[in-house]
Formats: sequence, structure tokens, C-alpha cells
Amino acid sequence: MSKSESKLVAAEKPRGFADKLGDAASAEERVVQAVGRIYEQWGFDRLETPAIEYTGALGKFLPDTDRPNEGVFSFLDDERWVSLRYDLTAPLARFAAEEWTNLPKPFRRWQTGPVWRNEKPGPGRFRQFIQCDADTVGADNPASDAEIVAMGAQALEAVGVPRDGYLFKINSRRILNGVLGGVGLTGDRAEKTRLIVMRAIDKLDRLGVDGVAALLGAGRKDESGDFTKGAELEPAAVKRVIDFVTLPTDTRQGVLAGLERIVGDTDEGRAGIAELAAIDAVLSALGVGDARARIDPSVVRGLEYYTGAVFEAELTLTVGESGKPVKFGSVGGGGRYDDLIARFTGERVPATGFSIGVSRLVAAQQVLGIGAERVSQPPVVVLALDRERMGDYFAIASELRAGGVRAEVYLGGAGMKAQLKYADKRNAPVAVIQGGDELAKGVVTLKDLRLGARIAGDLGEDREAYARARAQVQQEVPRAQVVAAVQQMLARPD
Amino acid sequence: MSKSESKLVAAEKPRGFADKLGDAASAEERVVQAVGRIYEQWGFDRLETPAIEYTGALGKFLPDTDRPNEGVFSFLDDERWVSLRYDLTAPLARFAAEEWTNLPKPFRRWQTGPVWRNEKPGPGRFRQFIQCDADTVGADNPASDAEIVAMGAQALEAVGVPRDGYLFKINSRRILNGVLGGVGLTGDRAEKTRLIVMRAIDKLDRLGVDGVAALLGAGRKDESGDFTKGAELEPAAVKRVIDFVTLPTDTRQGVLAGLERIVGDTDEGRAGIAELAAIDAVLSALGVGDARARIDPSVVRGLEYYTGAVFEAELTLTVGESGKPVKFGSVGGGGRYDDLIARFTGERVPATGFSIGVSRLVAAQQVLGIGAERVSQPPVVVLALDRERMGDYFAIASELRAGGVRAEVYLGGAGMKAQLKYADKRNAPVAVIQGGDELAKGVVTLKDLRLGARIAGDLGEDREAYARARAQVQQEVPRAQVVAAVQQMLARPD
Repeated sequence: MSKSESKLVAAEKPRGFADKLGDAASAEERVVQAVGRIYEQWGFDRLETPAIEYTGALGKFLPDTDRPNEGVFSFLDDERWVSLRYDLTAPLARFAAEEWTNLPKPFRRWQTGPVWRNEKPGPGRFRQFIQCDADTVGADNPASDAEIVAMGAQALEAVGVPRDGYLFKINSRRILNGVLGGVGLTGDRAEKTRLIVMRAIDKLDRLGVDGVAALLGAGRKDESGDFTKGAELEPAAVKRVIDFVTLPTDTRQGVLAGLERIVGDTDEGRAGIAELAAIDAVLSALGVGDARARIDPSVVRGLEYYTGAVFEAELTLTVGESGKPVKFGSVGGGGRYDDLIARFTGERVPATGFSIGVSRLVAAQQVLGIGAERVSQPPVVVLALDRERMGDYFAIASELRAGGVRAEVYLGGAGMKAQLKYADKRNAPVAVIQGGDELAKGVVTLKDLRLGARIAGDLGEDREAYARARAQVQQEVPRAQVVAAVQQMLARPD
Repeated sequence: MSKSESKLVAAEKPRGFADKLGDAASAEERVVQAVGRIYEQWGFDRLETPAIEYTGALGKFLPDTDRPNEGVFSFLDDERWVSLRYDLTAPLARFAAEEWTNLPKPFRRWQTGPVWRNEKPGPGRFRQFIQCDADTVGADNPASDAEIVAMGAQALEAVGVPRDGYLFKINSRRILNGVLGGVGLTGDRAEKTRLIVMRAIDKLDRLGVDGVAALLGAGRKDESGDFTKGAELEPAAVKRVIDFVTLPTDTRQGVLAGLERIVGDTDEGRAGIAELAAIDAVLSALGVGDARARIDPSVVRGLEYYTGAVFEAELTLTVGESGKPVKFGSVGGGGRYDDLIARFTGERVPATGFSIGVSRLVAAQQVLGIGAERVSQPPVVVLALDRERMGDYFAIASELRAGGVRAEVYLGGAGMKAQLKYADKRNAPVAVIQGGDELAKGVVTLKDLRLGARIAGDLGEDREAYARARAQVQQEVPRAQVVAAVQQMLARPD
């Protein structure tokens, strides 16, 4: 063959993409299944759309980027630009517009699958990842936002997050518009100032109240001496915005009362309060109290993208014995986007939705040790000591599988020692051995590899105890009893 | 808003791509889950690889096309060509080569996901579809081929295909090489003739023995008078090939004996017979008899791609009362490909695998009415007659869900009549109604929509019977008993 003489191809994948094997691959699937079961139960129908859409149909609605469409993989197909979907919302808008006349309205759907972002890859930043979304199209009722939040909460619990381990933060674009309007920042001319104010609010966690107040006023000098120009609001306006973002968020009713004081004098503010009050009412009816879903006026992220309510889901679990809270950041987010479908139909169609970042949630699961049951146990390995007797070994494996035991036959050409090494590499709990001696006696030898590893560690020094324990590790059983004997070994405590 | 004034975007997806909603989307997922559970049980680990690979890493190994790489979606990323994967085998080869030192060897993996083909779309021909593959890398033992076949058979049964409803056909590239060598067609010079012979064999179903014999000899004139030049084999050679492809395939042992006579005098033929005999032995040990897996020398498809054993899975079910067999063609295929990983490593790594075309299997399921339980029942719809009382309606839906009933609240702004229409469109079995009158009495009205549709059809003429039945259709129950009453309605026979 001339193949091996020709230039070899590098075995590598493009940067920013990942392979996932075994539990790593199954964990995402398991999360999606658990979440999907909840969404189905709430009346959401599963939708699949293609990975590839016309670039124009996807539009420039990528959230959280200043450079729309730069973040998208695009290429020419039949002289038209197509793109890999960057989220599951833009394809939904295209689908809903295309199928509008046939759909029950309002239309609830859930969807999962990979999305692609053409961004500079970095540590932990991937260019393909799984999302799991639920959206309601055609409902302007704030109850549909509340439903999405309550269902999202149930979904998080379905994947193992305890009830006191997460928090939904809810805000509304309208409320923020009310605040900005209340301090005179309306119209196109004030757009730049509005942006400065929103960026300042977004820094509350990092800079504290004084830092934000400085940025709302004349500006702020940081530790390095660099000066950031401020929004130059009047002191009264600064106070109003600060009062707004520092409203105590303990109870939704408390926040609503506070908002009434701060933005109740503007049309947009009143509309936002009514919206949030309606969401609060349905959440309460669904038993989702203040401990799980708060109204938080400081949530700004994504507001440019959304047109009404906006929600973020955070994990608040503590890890380890020190009880230190671990910041995972957001595991999901969403909100109301009433403009996406109008691009196709010319008519405003109200819509709201929520997206779970599946990979992020799986990462959190692993650190927190929640929902971590393995999909598959490591397999029992049946050694293959005689290539002429593969049928016998496969028969043993087949019987084990019929007995509910994950089992495989060694398929290589190596000797006994290498085969046991293979079994170790597979984390096999038990090896099943039938060489010529065993065959003649009508028996098999079972080796409890987990127990073997344990006593090798514990009893390495004590020869007598080691010999006694060894008798338990290696066991000869009649061929007919192999399944029962393996099941017994697997039942031994770890 | 200026949005609706600007040019509208067409709500369309690229040709050759499909949207799938509800059961259509869930059916594929259900097949993949059932198949995956079997593969896991046999010791195969799940693998996920990215949708995007370097074009060079994918190589030109697309089976069943004369125009390699034309069938692939490719684009530039950071000045390097990348492609959407066209199957799951090429990415496996890249992964195995990249991770070879870390993997247990032999390495078993299963994988599922979309693949993309940049082909001219047509009716029923899609450019994105789901495959579900199992492969073993690093084993040259024919037992690994047999395992793949037996496991594939179990997978088909796991998705509802009855044991007598499918057939695996097994052949080997080596056997065909033996036949071709036996009639003198060896070396590069005979390549063109070998192709003519293989194409002739592939037409056995369509042209019958005489047609194939003509194509092996001088050539063949078809009904239209067009003449196809033949391979111009000697009559003895024609007889040998015809004997080969018409061997009765009823029993594997019978075919093996026949092959011994026809190709036992060539090295390649003997190697192929030994390979198929070893496969037969393991299949028999696993209880897969002649009725489910045959050796069929006429299987030619894909032989250019594979290097040893090759297998095809066909559905042989009959449909309807006439008992006419329905031809679905192949629902899966695979074989041994020992050259794919050498492209990266320079060393030949034996490998074998099997791929199920998930969409094709789902289509077969639907026609045959197998494995067709719905993932979700249609939801019970709670009407929303008073926008101020959304919380009450959501509380009812929440109680129903806690009782195991899929339930949703109507979220639009329409009146009662339109809401009942919506419930019909959702195929809702029951509508739950609580207007002001019901609220005052502390009751809800339940409407059995399935029963309602039935009596409207049956009893439309008989007013008295209709009135009696109507009492059953519409029922007033105390608010506290709504879940139990709905469950009772759902339990009514269809």
C-alpha cells in the first residue's frame, strides 16, 4: 500500500471545539432529557430546525455582542449566504413566521441542540455548545413570562439542583425605560447617555454604590489613576437611579412598592410595574416564592435585546464543608422579545422564552456533585484467551447482559496480562476468565478487580491477611452459575 | 417603529432541510435512545465530536459517491478549510488517531447526531439527517464484525422491529476479490473490468441472471435498444461469477460450502471464507440464526469503501392485510474499514462499524405502526376567561401536572369560543373551564372533547340520545375534585 508513504494528515480538530467521551457525552444528554420531560408536561411541543439557515433569516439579533454577524459561521450555498444557527431563538422566529397559519396560537415549543459561535476560542470558551430553550409565541400576557420562569425552576430541580440552590432574577426593560425617562433621558439624543447609565448599573457588583454613583455623575478615577467619564446626571437624578438599583430585593412585593415610588410617575414605569405584578401573581399561584424568584432592578444584561421582561437563573449553591458560596454565574436566561417575528411578517408578534446553557449546567453539576449518577456502569470484561473460542466468550457476555449486567468481550490479540490491563483501563469491576484449564473443569474464574485494587492498597504488607482476602478476589464458579456469581460480586459494598 | 416599513425578510429555510414538530421530532430521539441503551449495554461508550472538522481530516472517504468532497459543506475558518461532517466515521478516525495513546484498545464507541451532505435536494432527500453509529477500532478479529451485527439486530428489535421483520446481509470484500482473482482480474490493468463486473453484480435484482450474464460477457441490449458494453469475460469466467452471485443464501453454512467450491482456490477467497466462518460462529453463539443474518455474495454496495466484511440491514416486514412485503430498502449498513486511521498515523488500524439511518427507520416505523407510542399525550387545556385570574388557572394546571396529566393554560387574548377552537387544534382531550359563574359556585366545568367529537358524529340526528350523551361530555365538578375528575375522563375508552 502506498498510503503510509504519502504525507500524513494531522489528527486535530479546529480550535474551540471539543470531543466528549462516555459520561461527559451522556451528562449533557441526561440534562436535556430531564428538562425536556418537564417542558413536555407543561404543554410545550418539541421542535427541531436545521443547523443551517439563510443568513438573512437569522438576522443580527445575536445577544451580548457588539459585533453582530461577526460571531456567526457563514458560507455560500448555491450563491446564497447561509449560516450555522448561533442560538435557537432566531430559527424559532423563522419557523413561527413560516408556519404561522398552521400553528395553534399561542404556540409553545421547546428545542434543544448545538449552536455555533464564530468567536475567538479560549480556555473554557467553545464555539459549539448545547442549548435547551422553551418559548411561547403569540402571547403578550405576562403570565406567559411567569410560566417560563416557574417551569425553568422546575427544570433546574429536575436535574438535581435543590430548591434552595438557585435563584431567578426578574426585571423589565420597561422599568429601566421608566427610570431613564424619569431622569430626562428620552429620545434619540440621549441614547449615548442611556448606554453609559446602563453600563454603570451593570458594574454595581464590582464597583459598589459609590463607584456607580460616580459613573452616573461626573466620572470615576480607578486605582490605577485612569479616569472614566460619567453620565453627568444631576445629583437628584443620580440619587434616583441609585435608589432604583439598590432597592432591597428580598420580597417581590417590597420591590414593587419601591418601584411605584421611583418610576410610578412615568408611563413606561407604570407599564413595567403592571407587568412585573402580573408575573408575581402567577408565580405565587404556582408556589414559586421570593426565595426562588426575585424582582431585581439591577439586572441589565441583555436588555438591549429584549423588549419587556427579562430573567436570569443563577445557581446559589454552596460547596464543600466550609460552606463557601460558589459563583457559577448564570446557567440560563431569557425574556420577552416582541420584535423578532415582525422582521418576516411585518406584524409585531409577542414572544417570550428561556434558554438553559446545558454545558454550563453540567459543569455545575459536576462540581456540586448533583444529578451525577452515571448513565452506564463500567462493563464487566470477559477475557478472550483462545481466538478459536470467541463464540464461548460472547455467549458468556450475552448471558450477563440478559442478566442486566453491562458486559463486553476483549477483542484484541494480546495475552492474559495485557487483557487484565485492558480491564483495568475500562474500570471493569469484574473480569471473567475461561482458559483451557477452566474449560476442562467446566468452570470460569471470576476476578473482583475493585476488591483486588482495594486489598492491594490496604493489605500489601500483611501477607497472611492478603492471602485470605485474595481468596475472595479470585473465585472459581461453575460455568452455569457465572451470571449469579458476577451479580453477587457487583453487589459487594465498594 | 420603523421595522415594519423596512423590507421584510422571507421566512424560509434552505432547500433540502426540514423542520420537525412534536412527535416527528421526538420519534428520532426515541429511536436513538433505545438504540443507545443497547450499545451501552454491550460495552460501547458514547462519543460526541464537533460538527465542524478540518476538511483534510475528513478526507475523501464519503461512501457511495463518485465525486468525493463535492458532497460536503465546506468553508474557510481562519484561512483553513473546515467542513461539516458528512458521516460519523471520519470524525471517529480523527478522534481515535488523536487520542490513540489514551484509549483502551480495542476501543468501542457509539455516537449519534446530525450529518450534512451538500447534495442536490429532492423529494425525500435531505441535506441534514441523523445517524446512529457503533464502531470498534483496533480489533482485526472477525468476532468484532459479528458483534456489531448481533448488536445491530438487538437494536432494531429495541425500536419495535419484530424478530422476523429484518435481515442482515453479510459479505466480504475479500470474497469478491477472490472471485475476481479467480477469473484473472487482478492488478491495476484489470481495474476497469473489475468495476464493470461489480456494477453488473449490483444489477442482479433488476436485470436477473441472464441480464447480468450478458453484462459479464459481450454486453447487453436493453428494451430501448441501447447497448451496454460488457466485461468480455470468457464463458467459464461468466459461469463462475454467476454461480457466485446466485448461491442459495438460505443458510450461512450452505453459502460457506458453496464459496469453498467457487473461490477456495484463491488466497483472498480463502481469507474471506475464514473471515465469514468466524463471523458465523460468533453469530451462532449469540443466537443470531440464518433467518436474521445471511451471507449474501451479491451484496456489492460500498465495497469500494470497505476493506473486509460488509453488512446491510434490511426491513422485511409485511404491511396491511394483503400481506404484501414492503420494500424499505436498507435501514443500516457498515463493514470493516482498515485504512481510515492510517491516514493520520501511518499505521494500519483495523476497524469495523455499523450505521443506522435514524430518519429512515422512523419512516419505516410510521408506515408499519411499530414503536409508535407517543412521547407526550396532547395536553389538557385550562381556559383563561378572566385575565385578572391567570393565577387561578395556572394553579389548576399545576395540580393536574402534579397528578401526572400534561396540562397547559390558554395564554392568548381571545374569547371562550376561540379558546375551545385552540383546544381542538391542540387535540386536547379535556378542556377545563372556570368562568365567573363557576367561581361563585366553587366549581369548574370539564368538557370531554374526545367524547364530544365522537357523539357529534354518531348522534347528530337523535336529539334525545344526544342530550343524554351531552351530560357526559360536559360536567360540573367541585374545584377540589378537578384532578380526579379529569383523570376519570382521560381513562374513558377511546
